[in-house]
Amino acid sequence: MYRPQNLRIPGPTFVPQSVLAASARPLINHRGPEFAALLAALTRALQDFLRTEHDVLILTASGSGAMEAAIANTLSSGDKVLAFSGGAFGERFAAIAKAYGVEARRVDVPYGRAIEPDLVRDELAKEKGKDGAKAVLLTHNETSTGVLNPVKDIAAVVRESGKLLLVDSVSGAGCSELEIDEWGIDVCVTASQKAWGAPPGVSMITMGPRAWKAYEKSNLPKAYFDLGSYKASLEKAQTPATPAVTVFIALQESLRLMAEEGLEAIIRRHRDLARATRRGLQAVNLQLFADERYASPAVTAFRPPARVDARNLIRILRDEHDTIVAGGQGKMEGQLVRVAHLGFVTLQDIVAFFSALELTLRDLNQPVEPGIAISAALRTYAESTQQQSSRPAARAASRPAADPVATRR
Amino acid sequence: MYRPQNLRIPGPTFVPQSVLAASARPLINHRGPEFAALLAALTRALQDFLRTEHDVLILTASGSGAMEAAIANTLSSGDKVLAFSGGAFGERFAAIAKAYGVEARRVDVPYGRAIEPDLVRDELAKEKGKDGAKAVLLTHNETSTGVLNPVKDIAAVVRESGKLLLVDSVSGAGCSELEIDEWGIDVCVTASQKAWGAPPGVSMITMGPRAWKAYEKSNLPKAYFDLGSYKASLEKAQTPATPAVTVFIALQESLRLMAEEGLEAIIRRHRDLARATRRGLQAVNLQLFADERYASPAVTAFRPPARVDARNLIRILRDEHDTIVAGGQGKMEGQLVRVAHLGFVTLQDIVAFFSALELTLRDLNQPVEPGIAISAALRTYAESTQQQSSRPAARAASRPAADPVATRR
Repeated sequence: MYRPQNLRIPGPTFVPQSVLAASARPLINHRGPEFAALLAALTRALQDFLRTEHDVLILTASGSGAMEAAIANTLSSGDKVLAFSGGAFGERFAAIAKAYGVEARRVDVPYGRAIEPDLVRDELAKEKGKDGAKAVLLTHNETSTGVLNPVKDIAAVVRESGKLLLVDSVSGAGCSELEIDEWGIDVCVTASQKAWGAPPGVSMITMGPRAWKAYEKSNLPKAYFDLGSYKASLEKAQTPATPAVTVFIALQESLRLMAEEGLEAIIRRHRDLARATRRGLQAVNLQLFADERYASPAVTAFRPPARVDARNLIRILRDEHDTIVAGGQGKMEGQLVRVAHLGFVTLQDIVAFFSALELTLRDLNQPVEPGIAISAALRTYAESTQQQSSRPAARAASRPAADPVATRR
Repeated sequence: MYRPQNLRIPGPTFVPQSVLAASARPLINHRGPEFAALLAALTRALQDFLRTEHDVLILTASGSGAMEAAIANTLSSGDKVLAFSGGAFGERFAAIAKAYGVEARRVDVPYGRAIEPDLVRDELAKEKGKDGAKAVLLTHNETSTGVLNPVKDIAAVVRESGKLLLVDSVSGAGCSELEIDEWGIDVCVTASQKAWGAPPGVSMITMGPRAWKAYEKSNLPKAYFDLGSYKASLEKAQTPATPAVTVFIALQESLRLMAEEGLEAIIRRHRDLARATRRGLQAVNLQLFADERYASPAVTAFRPPARVDARNLIRILRDEHDTIVAGGQGKMEGQLVRVAHLGFVTLQDIVAFFSALELTLRDLNQPVEPGIAISAALRTYAESTQQQSSRPAARAASRPAADPVATRR
């Protein structure tokens, strides 16, 4: 039976047809000239999107593998790091450091709250001197709670301290502002199946000059994730081990689509769709989980109605209304619903999500006025884009017809 | 311009159209019921093909990542291992161990020669007692030289010693005899883009009971490759991090095709096509590199004609005749040509290779009687399959018409 899914989880995100088709091309030699050209072009395109002139290395591993590479290539056993965390992925970054014998002092903020620059400043003040932390671990977009941490301002604080800044931007890069060189981020990781709208299996890691200096001194064991070998291979336009060729090819096609839209327009689209999503949820009295000031452009977490288990709501959305969302992770299981608006997502996808959600609420005996969430979302979106149109510079880019993803299917 | 390639490298191997099409299906939730069913079915199918009732864990990483997992999950810092090597991949296995602070005593055999059970017995005799090696690292099919090491007999020797046996069968599994449980192999790794005929990006690792016992004591750092977390996740039909979903789906389709053919028939086909390839090469006076007694069913290495750089021959094959083969690795660069007959390969592919090779030899002013290599290959193949037909038990399976891959394109 034909039942297309509206995939609204924060990765794997929706993959456009042309990207899927690219991934199904016949295999090529990963040591031949065709792959060499692909790898060089992919690397340049990623440097553009990640706003760095330094190294971008592409790993055949998911984002967690790249997070491990960030640790293993810059730190040594017994080193101390300051690990800020506001959710499952902040916790994971610290846990990876600990697995490598790095002392990770975790500074937690409550789930749903952002890591604020003042907190980072205060904690860094405790880490002065030779025994202080060598690096700061930071999550950019905390996928588990829907919080976008203010990396720009935090990076400025970390820079003053002279410590290394390792950023997990697995789900932040490509959908929110991120200026790797300008902000002074030493290592940053992201993954193919997030904003990039490609299949999972590939992750990307940036290494700035301070990170390479740290690499020289790092004594943590590394082989598959040894970024020195990636850099040496890249000079021959190769990878040290066999790469996930089909995902690389897919990623090149998704980056082509993204370049047509333009990074600024992509960031604006995410911000506007996220806002529309929040207003739509509030219109049906669902409680948003994250601090509104730091609401994620990638994913919105909300509480189910009173006395409803989130897992039940998620199951009905899936089984009855073909809409796939995520639940809470770890200690938030059963308490949260997370709907993503990440990657190649359009206003129509959000409208479809709300039509499914309204029907699900009815199924849960929580009926709402039909269309009320959709109307709120559409009104909010119209307001956002209208404001942009009134600013002359933004006019051309904000015209919906210019959006190449609008007609993608 | 339409110029299909005859991809004759030892991985990525040719991927059938139905496998490519499977990999281009819309993405699914890696935490949902559809992926859970896929992972469970994939795991069972791999247990069948790898002849093990113990754990098969599927990693989002290439084969080198799984080799690292084999080391990091069973050994501890300061442990000693005995690393047998006859080529680039034997060397890599030892190098990974060293990167983790494991003392790897390398025992090298000349390139092109096999690691023989007597050598293993002699070397193990030096490793008795508390300070002896804890494990043996062994390459099954040495892709860089085209040698298939006699793992069955070596495993019997290693079992007597009580040491762990870690086998790199990245390019051996699925195309040659391999009885993981019966032979007593503790850890074995393979990868999607080899005999399995799926795109690269996924590797598989088996863990037997002795390996899990070693895991409990292992203190090497591991996070992304922590097999304990893979096993725990598998019990929920999940993976610890986001898996390469599209490659998993492709692998399921290629395993379906392989199950239709049957493992015994696949092994026979590889053996017969390898033999036909060797006889074809000899018919045009090209010197085979590997010891004939241990010739690989996956890949055949040969020397270029006198005074011809292998790289030049490989370039002409590629640029003029659309046939992609591999060269020598490391110190063998420029001295070897490697042609693969691995995965979904048919007699027609071998014929096509020889037609390209004959033309290339002509281009290199080494003309040969047109069709002489092809005839030798066809004659050898006919002899092999005729012998099988005369054995009643083999008759049904050896009929070419029953081979599902013959009409695959």
